[in-house]
Amino acid sequence: MESPSSNPTPDILVFGSRADRHAVEEGLVFAPKFDEHGLIPAIATDVASGAVLMVAYMNEESLRETLRRGEAVYYSRSRKTLWHKGGSSGHVQVVREILVDCDQDALVLKVDQKGPGCCHVGYTGCFFRGVPFGADLPETTPDNPLPLHLTEAGKAYDPKAVYG
Amino acid sequence: MESPSSNPTPDILVFGSRADRHAVEEGLVFAPKFDEHGLIPAIATDVASGAVLMVAYMNEESLRETLRRGEAVYYSRSRKTLWHKGGSSGHVQVVREILVDCDQDALVLKVDQKGPGCCHVGYTGCFFRGVPFGADLPETTPDNPLPLHLTEAGKAYDPKAVYG
Repeated sequence: MESPSSNPTPDILVFGSRADRHAVEEGLVFAPKFDEHGLIPAIATDVASGAVLMVAYMNEESLRETLRRGEAVYYSRSRKTLWHKGGSSGHVQVVREILVDCDQDALVLKVDQKGPGCCHVGYTGCFFRGVPFGADLPETTPDNPLPLHLTEAGKAYDPKAVYG
Repeated sequence: MESPSSNPTPDILVFGSRADRHAVEEGLVFAPKFDEHGLIPAIATDVASGAVLMVAYMNEESLRETLRRGEAVYYSRSRKTLWHKGGSSGHVQVVREILVDCDQDALVLKVDQKGPGCCHVGYTGCFFRGVPFGADLPETTPDNPLPLHLTEAGKAYDPKAVYG
C-alpha cells in the first residue's frame, strides 16, 4: 500500500446512489446522473468574471479525471475520446470550484482559464454572439434569417497559430 | 394585415441553415442545433451577479416563445410540455440577454429572476452544493460515498408555500 504522499488522491472514488430522489435533490452525497449517452453537461465559468466560457460534456471517466486532477477533462462527443482541455493548446482550465444542481444532472466548474481564451475559434469564451429577442426581433425571411451580433470586441488569439 | 403596433413581434421567425460549419461557428446568422430529442440546453444566469441559476432545455417551440416573450420558456423533459418558468410560482425570468456558443448548440440566458429564487427545492439557484476535488477528495467507501457541501447559507423561500 502506498503512502499518502505518493498517492495524494484516492484510488477508489465512490459516488452515491440515485435511488432516493429527495436525497439526490437535497442531500449531501454526490450522485451524478449520466444521460443515455453516459454524459453529463459541464458548464465552465470564469472564476474571476463569472462569465460562462463554454458548455461541454463529461462521461464518468472524464468526471473522475477532473475530480482527481483539478483540471477540466471533458469527453469529446465528436472525437469520442477523453479531452483534457488545453492539453494541446496549453489553455488548461484549473478548477477552483465544482457545483452540482438539484437534480444532479448538470455541473458548473468555476475555472481559472489559462492562456488568452477557451474557444477554438479564437474568442475568450464560446458565447461571443448575442441573439435578438422581444422588441428587438427583426422581420425575417428565408433570405434574411435571424441575425446575431458580436458581444466581444474581437478575438483574443489566433487559433491557427495555436492549433495549426 | 395587422399594423406593427398590434403585432410587435414577427409572425415568421426564420432561423439560418447549419449547412456551412464556418458560418455556424463564426457567422452572424442564428442557426441553433437541436439534439436528437429536439432540444438545446439553455443556461440561465443572474444578470446582476453572473451566477449560474439553472440549466434547462428548450425545444424549437419554447425557444421561439422565449424570443417572442422575452421571458424564459423551457421544455419540461419530465412533463413533456412547454414550461413557462414562473408561470405557477410567479418567479418568472425576464430575459436581458441571450447568447449562443460557437457550435450554436447551447444558449446562455442572462435573466432578471423575479421572486426569491428559481430552484424548486427553495434555493436562489439550483447550484447550491459543491463537490470536493483534488487535494480535498476524501477517502470514500460504498458506505461513505463522495460528500457534497452546501454553498448557500440557506433556502431563500419555502417551496411548500409556493408550490403547495
